[in-house]
Amino acid sequence: MTEWTLHPDRALPADPTTRPVAREIYETTQDLPIVSMHGHVDVAAFADDTPFPDPAQLFVVPDHYLTRMLVSQGTPLPALGVGPSGTPGLETDPRAIWRRFCSGWKHFRGTPTRYWLEHELVEIFGVTQRPSAETADAIYDQIAARLAEPGFRPRALLDQFRIETIATTDPAWSDLAQHRALAAQLGSLADSTAGAVTRTGGASADGGGGGDVASGAVPTGSTVATLPAPRVVPTFRPDPLLHLDQPAWRTDIDRLAAAADTQIGDYAAYLAALRERRRAFVAAGGSATDHGHLSADTTPLPDDVAADVFARALAGAGVTAAEAAAFSGHMLFQMAAMSCEDGLTMQLHPGVLRNHDPERLAMFGPDKGYDIPVVTEYTNALRPVLEAFGHAENFRLIAFTVDEDAFSRELAPLAGVYPALRLGAPWWFLDEPDAMRRFREAATGTAGFSNLSGFVDDTRAFCSIPARHDLARRIDAGYLARLVVEHRLDLDEAVDTASDLAYRLPKQAYPTPADAPAGV
Amino acid sequence: MTEWTLHPDRALPADPTTRPVAREIYETTQDLPIVSMHGHVDVAAFADDTPFPDPAQLFVVPDHYLTRMLVSQGTPLPALGVGPSGTPGLETDPRAIWRRFCSGWKHFRGTPTRYWLEHELVEIFGVTQRPSAETADAIYDQIAARLAEPGFRPRALLDQFRIETIATTDPAWSDLAQHRALAAQLGSLADSTAGAVTRTGGASADGGGGGDVASGAVPTGSTVATLPAPRVVPTFRPDPLLHLDQPAWRTDIDRLAAAADTQIGDYAAYLAALRERRRAFVAAGGSATDHGHLSADTTPLPDDVAADVFARALAGAGVTAAEAAAFSGHMLFQMAAMSCEDGLTMQLHPGVLRNHDPERLAMFGPDKGYDIPVVTEYTNALRPVLEAFGHAENFRLIAFTVDEDAFSRELAPLAGVYPALRLGAPWWFLDEPDAMRRFREAATGTAGFSNLSGFVDDTRAFCSIPARHDLARRIDAGYLARLVVEHRLDLDEAVDTASDLAYRLPKQAYPTPADAPAGV
Amino acid sequence: MTEWTLHPDRALPADPTTRPVAREIYETTQDLPIVSMHGHVDVAAFADDTPFPDPAQLFVVPDHYLTRMLVSQGTPLPALGVGPSGTPGLETDPRAIWRRFCSGWKHFRGTPTRYWLEHELVEIFGVTQRPSAETADAIYDQIAARLAEPGFRPRALLDQFRIETIATTDPAWSDLAQHRALAAQLGSLADSTAGAVTRTGGASADGGGGGDVASGAVPTGSTVATLPAPRVVPTFRPDPLLHLDQPAWRTDIDRLAAAADTQIGDYAAYLAALRERRRAFVAAGGSATDHGHLSADTTPLPDDVAADVFARALAGAGVTAAEAAAFSGHMLFQMAAMSCEDGLTMQLHPGVLRNHDPERLAMFGPDKGYDIPVVTEYTNALRPVLEAFGHAENFRLIAFTVDEDAFSRELAPLAGVYPALRLGAPWWFLDEPDAMRRFREAATGTAGFSNLSGFVDDTRAFCSIPARHDLARRIDAGYLARLVVEHRLDLDEAVDTASDLAYRLPKQAYPTPADAPAGV
Repeated sequence: MTEWTLHPDRALPADPTTRPVAREIYETTQDLPIVSMHGHVDVAAFADDTPFPDPAQLFVVPDHYLTRMLVSQGTPLPALGVGPSGTPGLETDPRAIWRRFCSGWKHFRGTPTRYWLEHELVEIFGVTQRPSAETADAIYDQIAARLAEPGFRPRALLDQFRIETIATTDPAWSDLAQHRALAAQLGSLADSTAGAVTRTGGASADGGGGGDVASGAVPTGSTVATLPAPRVVPTFRPDPLLHLDQPAWRTDIDRLAAAADTQIGDYAAYLAALRERRRAFVAAGGSATDHGHLSADTTPLPDDVAADVFARALAGAGVTAAEAAAFSGHMLFQMAAMSCEDGLTMQLHPGVLRNHDPERLAMFGPDKGYDIPVVTEYTNALRPVLEAFGHAENFRLIAFTVDEDAFSRELAPLAGVYPALRLGAPWWFLDEPDAMRRFREAATGTAGFSNLSGFVDDTRAFCSIPARHDLARRIDAGYLARLVVEHRLDLDEAVDTASDLAYRLPKQAYPTPADAPAGV
Repeated sequence: MTEWTLHPDRALPADPTTRPVAREIYETTQDLPIVSMHGHVDVAAFADDTPFPDPAQLFVVPDHYLTRMLVSQGTPLPALGVGPSGTPGLETDPRAIWRRFCSGWKHFRGTPTRYWLEHELVEIFGVTQRPSAETADAIYDQIAARLAEPGFRPRALLDQFRIETIATTDPAWSDLAQHRALAAQLGSLADSTAGAVTRTGGASADGGGGGDVASGAVPTGSTVATLPAPRVVPTFRPDPLLHLDQPAWRTDIDRLAAAADTQIGDYAAYLAALRERRRAFVAAGGSATDHGHLSADTTPLPDDVAADVFARALAGAGVTAAEAAAFSGHMLFQMAAMSCEDGLTMQLHPGVLRNHDPERLAMFGPDKGYDIPVVTEYTNALRPVLEAFGHAENFRLIAFTVDEDAFSRELAPLAGVYPALRLGAPWWFLDEPDAMRRFREAATGTAGFSNLSGFVDDTRAFCSIPARHDLARRIDAGYLARLVVEHRLDLDEAVDTASDLAYRLPKQAYPTPADAPAGV
Repeated sequence: MTEWTLHPDRALPADPTTRPVAREIYETTQDLPIVSMHGHVDVAAFADDTPFPDPAQLFVVPDHYLTRMLVSQGTPLPALGVGPSGTPGLETDPRAIWRRFCSGWKHFRGTPTRYWLEHELVEIFGVTQRPSAETADAIYDQIAARLAEPGFRPRALLDQFRIETIATTDPAWSDLAQHRALAAQLGSLADSTAGAVTRTGGASADGGGGGDVASGAVPTGSTVATLPAPRVVPTFRPDPLLHLDQPAWRTDIDRLAAAADTQIGDYAAYLAALRERRRAFVAAGGSATDHGHLSADTTPLPDDVAADVFARALAGAGVTAAEAAAFSGHMLFQMAAMSCEDGLTMQLHPGVLRNHDPERLAMFGPDKGYDIPVVTEYTNALRPVLEAFGHAENFRLIAFTVDEDAFSRELAPLAGVYPALRLGAPWWFLDEPDAMRRFREAATGTAGFSNLSGFVDDTRAFCSIPARHDLARRIDAGYLARLVVEHRLDLDEAVDTASDLAYRLPKQAYPTPADAPAGV
């Protein structure tokens, strides 16, 4: 084994004609700031800014991409430190967890987890040897030492990672106090931080429907400067409130009522409370909502039917599974209607059957790797919302999928005509090099580039954010380079498009709502 | 910006080992005549042979591939000249429309529209600069000047494009007068035209089921000579008559009755009228029917049930949506049965939900970019027709899809065993370079090449026909070259197959029915 | 035409940077023994060890991949010697059949049949000219002469092909006498055969769930030695007994009863007989069961419902199609439960609509090329079995698919978390070079390599086995080489993974059940 390093041409195309063109394109985007408009990093990490505890807690325990692979090879979740206190076999020694992970390194071959982790370990933590049973302890010590340094605390990494904006995902009832405090602090923090990146004002000028993406300025190395707030922004996620059949629904409605400082006695009050909370998110700098539904259905119910179903659910009376499903589709339509009012970009993440194994849900809770995609239909499902709001000036809907068959068949054809719709980046099981390439190949012919959201990382693994954005830029450079080499695009166009995908399009897809307070 | 030119290697594989082989294969097909056996160019263009009015009317207004992309970026259809007279905001200045298109050139990056238009503008009209807001007027003037020349009238372009045969698509009630007149005129025209291409007689010899494609002669540069009629042939499209729930159905039945010179008082008379009109299409040189249905279902109803549903529809009595859908499937079965009688090749284009946005349909009419694919099932849907006629000597069914998932799973396995079935070329949203490649990669392993229709352009954009055929030949050359370089095919076989795909297979898939009058 | 030879780089990537790396990886697997853990070669071939009759019977008549292609081009099955005695037009001259096949050689271009046959004809039989009408007789004579030699009898080919283990597929009621006799004979045969390959003991040590694939030893050229029994092992296939609506079901139940030496008067006795037969397969060296169902559904019924449906079927009383379908899903669940008891690996091959053309079924019987895939759902369908047994120590389920859309959407996400589930190799219509590549590209990101079965040939064409394994090793080398060239994997890892896929993973996926008698 020679020293573990990152090759400068990694993830660029193998073809020797295409690779140098890809490198040339990539070099124009590799230093762009990161705009991370959807993800699941906890705001508390930045609000508290306490050091990450240890390598196992940073890399292994919370990352279900990683733990599910080891589970599939026979390692129980508790042996990886996953499970509530008191779980039989729950490993509490972070070093033991780390060793198990390093011993299973082989199983990650060919996966994006391997690719991202290699990037993170080498680039951020300076690791120079491949993980294995033999190297586990030395790597652990090296990372642990770094985590104790001030430069490796969350806010410092925000700068080191060149993150211009990062969105968290927050329950609809969040009081957003940490976001508000943070916005104030980060404003001053940015001024005193040498490496801080700029949030350019260019993008807001073309935030409306139909703007030309070319008009957004892209910061270059020399123009990067201090960062105006907001830098960490919330995202409104009302899922538990829209699914009447969730066990905690009644409790969550009470949380919503409390957060909106109101009583929710009927359907009208429920809508009013949601509308009120959306306003609070806009005021805290939020630019989007997020919706995880099993189906993409957006069919509205008649108001009286919706009100009746809601009333029965509130009273604890019977609501059938079909009624609950219909109500959640109805509420997606309502969310779209509210987005037309308040300007929050609507993100739809459908098609995942959550908690496939109920026993593991009971033992370990949600988000433990047991979420499995299903066939997802969009053409009929999105029709009600697109008929109603697909040409609305102030509406932006970003559709994601884990069913890649929908890209060429449904999503690109829809995004290629409705101004309100943009295609999200390849999501979750599709966020790896080959799937990202397939997305470009399947969607571009019909949707072009201008109807895309640009790259969205959607991760809860904070340290993987630079790796993910860097990988996306490499894959895009490779795809664009092929178009150039096949004489389907000129080089200057490819270079311009690369910056669109990496930087301008995400800013344009998630514009700051017009009535958000300046400077927030 | 250097001068805008077409690179001779465009759309050939990037790989430096494969490209020269691809070039060698492409050079053997690039000059073959064009056999365009399915499309939507209006016969009137050739019958009248009047000059195209202006660049906007030629390239922008009628091309929904193009207008839908600009709509998706916020330009309303009326601003592009689309809409009935009196539409608010309807642009009537062709130069203004052209400018809007040129200003939006960026949005076409990576799309086939961009590729085809570049080919057309450079190759046919000699444009030497990339479209943009700045160059729009100069390009407009250049094209407009050309359109005024005699060599740019439709019939002259027919020769310039080396189109041996072109099929239009015509309502079942068309009187076909323009086709008849044209056939007579083109016969003499061809004799007096230096560039006219030959319609070789070789293909008709192997028109029956199961012929060896190798037996069809391919014209070479030196053998191209004068063209026997027919050159512009009609295609029988009965769709509106088969969908009982279309608003105009009752009126269209009257049109059918008038065209067939009969009364349609019951289901038997309806079938007889359809049969009569098919005969008229055969007599006018037609070789095919065309069927656009939401589903590929071909399940026959019992005759009395079909007769009863038809009678109720005719009487304006209630027909449910389910009955109408079942009747349309039943009628596909009847059309197949009639094809066994009269030898018209049956083309099936299923799986597109037409007019997704009803408001735009009301404002602008059909075919405006709001047609969106849906999941399409073939294995069960085609079973009734294939059970009944899949081995019939005189039956040929060509199945198209916009759901590419069906290629490897259903269509190639079906075409790989039933003699009557051939796979149509990648259709509509799939007619771009990467999707054409995916089609080859998904279908060839199971269906081979001999079970394909060869290239079918299916366009209403007349000037794009040479670009589309040229692109298909390049993609096929690239795919075949890879097989050669991977030692999966010998070069002589690849060269032979390239001519099959470009020329012999379309002629064989759409043979002239045996009872068509000679010389028509 | 120059001499027909196999290029050493065939099926390796075209890209000149990747090819030498692929060659380097391939060279490490090309000589590994063949582990053929699922297929349809008849045990009688080895038990009788009679010479293959003639080239037509060896290559054409029984191979539905081959005959279906010629059928699709208009050659009736009887003209290829397929059909029961007395079939009109049944060809009985093997030379005439062979000529028809050679004359249609063109139609196989681009198919795996062409690739395998080229390998077989050149490598095994020394053919040096391409098949055609002109060369048919000479090739026939050459092959026929070879078939008369002792070295071309089935058992000798077993050695020549370096087959370490081959699994047959046997009805649940098989008496397995031929397998038992063969095991005894092959034990001594192996000792006296110079070229025999070794069955290493390393694999059984890591047969349990979650073992590290790296622990299995791989024989190298120098370690290949004599072969301990068993070498030809049976596979338990109970399909006809699980589908209550099959015409022969009642008869087959009697066969099951006879084989299990019991009476089957109710559902409990039926389960007991199945369990007993599984024990007999284990005792005869079997390591797996095989299940071909239209759907992957595994939903268990309440025991009393299952018992009632079974009782009605047994009595010849009415069982609806829905009840029969539900019962077959229920029985998959029961088979999984029994696998947990007896350690037989469960293979699931769903999603094929058998006998699409009932008339051909009546004329020629099953397995004649009229089996067509349908959309196949796994996420919900496999949920009952995975909830119940997905983490069971002793359970191994291998899921195959002919619906490649399921790879990235459902199968890789499921296999990437449930320890019991492994993904089978690309199956049937997907076992060709480009589909095998797509499988790697679609599944690896989420499932990695360790959750795969490794290569499974699943063929009834005995002579194609070396060609199929060799092709799979080439495609895997090409895929792995790309990962190396793209710096996503190190070369030593790629080399190690190549041996996993070719050799270690199949042995691990089909471990010998713990209670199988030693030396059997």
